[in-house]
Amino acid sequence: MRSILETFSNSYPNRDYLIEIVCPEFTSVCPKTGQPDFGTITFQYTPDNLCVELKSLKLYLQQFRNEGIFYENVTNRILDDMVQILSPRWMRIVASFTPRGGISTSITVEYTHDAG
Amino acid sequence: MRSILETFSNSYPNRDYLIEIVCPEFTSVCPKTGQPDFGTITFQYTPDNLCVELKSLKLYLQQFRNEGIFYENVTNRILDDMVQILSPRWMRIVASFTPRGGISTSITVEYTHDAG
Amino acid sequence: MRSILETFSNSYPNRDYLIEIVCPEFTSVCPKTGQPDFGTITFQYTPDNLCVELKSLKLYLQQFRNEGIFYENVTNRILDDMVQILSPRWMRIVASFTPRGGISTSITVEYTHDAG
Amino acid sequence: MRSILETFSNSYPNRDYLIEIVCPEFTSVCPKTGQPDFGTITFQYTPDNLCVELKSLKLYLQQFRNEGIFYENVTNRILDDMVQILSPRWMRIVASFTPRGGISTSITVEYTHDAG
Amino acid sequence: MRSILETFSNSYPNRDYLIEIVCPEFTSVCPKTGQPDFGTITFQYTPDNLCVELKSLKLYLQQFRNEGIFYENVTNRILDDMVQILSPRWMRIVASFTPRGGISTSITVEYTHDAG
Amino acid sequence: MRSILETFSNSYPNRDYLIEIVCPEFTSVCPKTGQPDFGTITFQYTPDNLCVELKSLKLYLQQFRNEGIFYENVTNRILDDMVQILSPRWMRIVASFTPRGGISTSITVEYTHDAG
Amino acid sequence: MRSILETFSNSYPNRDYLIEIVCPEFTSVCPKTGQPDFGTITFQYTPDNLCVELKSLKLYLQQFRNEGIFYENVTNRILDDMVQILSPRWMRIVASFTPRGGISTSITVEYTHDAG
Amino acid sequence: MRSILETFSNSYPNRDYLIEIVCPEFTSVCPKTGQPDFGTITFQYTPDNLCVELKSLKLYLQQFRNEGIFYENVTNRILDDMVQILSPRWMRIVASFTPRGGISTSITVEYTHDAG
Amino acid sequence: MRSILETFSNSYPNRDYLIEIVCPEFTSVCPKTGQPDFGTITFQYTPDNLCVELKSLKLYLQQFRNEGIFYENVTNRILDDMVQILSPRWMRIVASFTPRGGISTSITVEYTHDAG
Amino acid sequence: MRSILETFSNSYPNRDYLIEIVCPEFTSVCPKTGQPDFGTITFQYTPDNLCVELKSLKLYLQQFRNEGIFYENVTNRILDDMVQILSPRWMRIVASFTPRGGISTSITVEYTHDAG
Repeated sequence: MRSILETFSNSYPNRDYLIEIVCPEFTSVCPKTGQPDFGTITFQYTPDNLCVELKSLKLYLQQFRNEGIFYENVTNRILDDMVQILSPRWMRIVASFTPRGGISTSITVEYTHDAG
Repeated sequence: MRSILETFSNSYPNRDYLIEIVCPEFTSVCPKTGQPDFGTITFQYTPDNLCVELKSLKLYLQQFRNEGIFYENVTNRILDDMVQILSPRWMRIVASFTPRGGISTSITVEYTHDAG
Repeated sequence: MRSILETFSNSYPNRDYLIEIVCPEFTSVCPKTGQPDFGTITFQYTPDNLCVELKSLKLYLQQFRNEGIFYENVTNRILDDMVQILSPRWMRIVASFTPRGGISTSITVEYTHDAG
Repeated sequence: MRSILETFSNSYPNRDYLIEIVCPEFTSVCPKTGQPDFGTITFQYTPDNLCVELKSLKLYLQQFRNEGIFYENVTNRILDDMVQILSPRWMRIVASFTPRGGISTSITVEYTHDAG
Repeated sequence: MRSILETFSNSYPNRDYLIEIVCPEFTSVCPKTGQPDFGTITFQYTPDNLCVELKSLKLYLQQFRNEGIFYENVTNRILDDMVQILSPRWMRIVASFTPRGGISTSITVEYTHDAG
Repeated sequence: MRSILETFSNSYPNRDYLIEIVCPEFTSVCPKTGQPDFGTITFQYTPDNLCVELKSLKLYLQQFRNEGIFYENVTNRILDDMVQILSPRWMRIVASFTPRGGISTSITVEYTHDAG
Repeated sequence: MRSILETFSNSYPNRDYLIEIVCPEFTSVCPKTGQPDFGTITFQYTPDNLCVELKSLKLYLQQFRNEGIFYENVTNRILDDMVQILSPRWMRIVASFTPRGGISTSITVEYTHDAG
Repeated sequence: MRSILETFSNSYPNRDYLIEIVCPEFTSVCPKTGQPDFGTITFQYTPDNLCVELKSLKLYLQQFRNEGIFYENVTNRILDDMVQILSPRWMRIVASFTPRGGISTSITVEYTHDAG
Repeated sequence: MRSILETFSNSYPNRDYLIEIVCPEFTSVCPKTGQPDFGTITFQYTPDNLCVELKSLKLYLQQFRNEGIFYENVTNRILDDMVQILSPRWMRIVASFTPRGGISTSITVEYTHDAG
Repeated sequence: MRSILETFSNSYPNRDYLIEIVCPEFTSVCPKTGQPDFGTITFQYTPDNLCVELKSLKLYLQQFRNEGIFYENVTNRILDDMVQILSPRWMRIVASFTPRGGISTSITVEYTHDAG
């Protein structure tokens, strides 16, 4: 699934800088009820040698459209995929889901490259 | 009362991450006046081995609907219950109540797992 | 149920004027699912000889707290009760309910005194 | 009480135009509970030969600071006083009061000069 | 497709009143590009003998999730389906779609029962 | 003072259309206290043969910077000047002033060309 | 220039309905100063037999990117082009431009098909 | 004056937690001009053995209604009174006053219990 | 110019506390174009023995009304004057100016008393 | 390209202070699709001996109007140019671009003068 993600070379690898990408049109399916969930996925990362190509990121996220998966798991899995493809110096993902049963939820996961 | 809370396994226990849950439809009863109070309860926590199931959390909070309890006590008691059930690595609860007599109140309580 | 509503004399019956009352803390129970509903009830009316007393209106609305009733019916019933007690020259009630299943609903009902 | 209101000549009596004055610092006392009420009084009027002087209007409204009076009555009384002093072609007053017991109220009164 | 819509009896058929339903989680597919579209569908109607059941309306709208259809056509088709099932006295549907290529679009359609 | 206003030809005199100009940086001096007043002047007009040039309008409004003049009079005078220079088919001017003594004021004046 | 606009058939010509299109990324050049202008163009229209295709509308508006033209003229010219291509039953265009010299401007033009 | 403040026992003295109380209906009198001042007083504190009772806090603040006192002094004095009565572990008070002469002011004072 | 600033004694010199003053009606003149500039000046300071009197601060700022001075210089000069008059323990000034040529600017300067 | 940037002397070089400049009218061209991009560029810097002249900064940014360049590169290149011309003590640039394909992006780059 992560193979759809494309990258391009970071032209300024000597500088630590921040890229933020906000995707407010995320939708997946609740594995318990079969009902669609809606949310906003926000990426923040400092690239090392690679940046993510935006159209491929959109297509990657669209793959969850008809997949049944819990909030906590979809957020962690997207982080794993992005780290695998980009090897960023640092990345944070915040997934905010619209209310269900009067309750709204968001998940925040973070990755820091181990300099070791 | 806390026995109604259900949990599920955290699939990513090796990663410290943040779950935020906002419940804007909390209501209880003022023990002094017998009048209903209304508020928003916000949970933030880093799970250890367990996450709280959202529907059971909703039912848990509904148990306060006809109970007389002060702002400070309801907030602390919810924290005690959640810590007992989830054993989280860290948890903060903010309870914001709608104005009474032109005065609005919020209570913030926090728990950190003692690593000892 | 409507007998709890109290009134006081309109001191300016020779003038047509508008009273608006906003009650954002309305809650009842869904008769289908048994889950609580939350909403805001807004009253607008032109009094004839009587005005509604605010504290009694609050107590009247609190009677719905544990009653199972559909959105459309609760709104129409409140209008019937208010018209019965106040005999206003004109009244409009708007009931706006918080989202359920990602869908929010509001009901608007209106009454005009038949001058005949 | 209305004698404190001062006026000045309307320099453009041949033109119908609108003056709006917003006074967000109104306070009086509830005659039932003795507790202070707070609100915003908005005036809209088309002057005939006189306009109201703003500082005197402020002092006029301050006279209600320690007076016990109901929402409906204070609004109608202010309209009566203003009409008596200004003889405007048209005037509307909207008084919006801050919430009490979770309920907020506003009163709208209007006057049109009878051309007869 | 419209057969999934369920109705219930209007308990107050002698009164003309307004029901508004807002569905911010609508998604379909662009028939030209195959990309998902996102939007908010707002219904306003005056019922005759029938009201629409909310859960069935949600399931009805979910049927568009993987269907390719233009903005103008989806809005008109939903109106046709709702009128066919509910025979309302009056209905308006507003569909607002999120931006594409920096351009956002909304469609407003309306139906009035021909009293003839 | 109005001679500073410049105009240019309306290229579409056969069509009635609306031009709105918002000037949030208006300042003059209170003739009573000598203190500066601040406000926003909004123009709406349907041109006949002439449109106002924006830079000249700015310079025209700057002439009031150190002039002592009442709210009601400055608004009416600007309308008179604009009508004299532009002969518009219709014009409305709204002048909104920042609060003084906790009270804010706005003046609305309007002109319609007499077709006679 | 208008030849770039493409249309498609209105599938519901028997119904009068409203299409609104908001384009917040309009830019042209001031013919006096050579400086770029920025604005939002909003279209509202009731189609007859034709609707405008959105991508072609975007490309049409991009043609103004390096063209020197006054606010009033660009708005009227876009209306003329749209009416020529679409022959709508009714159309309104509102063009709102960002501030220059502390002054912001918007132009509203409207067309109604002459039923004669 | 501070003797009107009532307290109740903190049921969770073993936990450091935060109580925030917002009072937007504060009014006193300017000692220089005799004109009323309006403001919002916000309390944040970590209780030791005592919490402040809300109704008594409201009555305490109402005592300033007709008292002439400067912004800086009223804020510091309220802090002194609260510390005297509650002996909190930590307390911050922010007093924000509405504009006078186009200028708005806020005062922030803080107290930390000396553990010595 | 700074001699117009008046002070009064700080009644609570034993406590470090914060005074914030917001002046949204600042205006000066651009020394390059001769056009007026508009902005908001925000003061934050911890008083030592003296506080600034608000009316004198207003008159001090009004002295810039017809003076030509650059953004950076006016902000630094106001800080120098205030420090000279008040000898505060700490002070920050933020000056935010309205857009010119589509560009808005703010300047932040800070002073800390050297305890040496 | 950077040669168009003009500077003026910092009159307060002995003080570290912050200048913020917000340019919401940035536009360039996507090198992949040829479509225009729109964004807001925010500069924050502490000057050493030189400040940037605002009109030259506007003309500098206008040079990107018809140039094809990626988000990440345009932001880094602007930082390089500004540092080259101004030699600031510290500078941060945030570039926020409007949504494309439902996805919005911002880039944050920072420079600190190496005191060595």
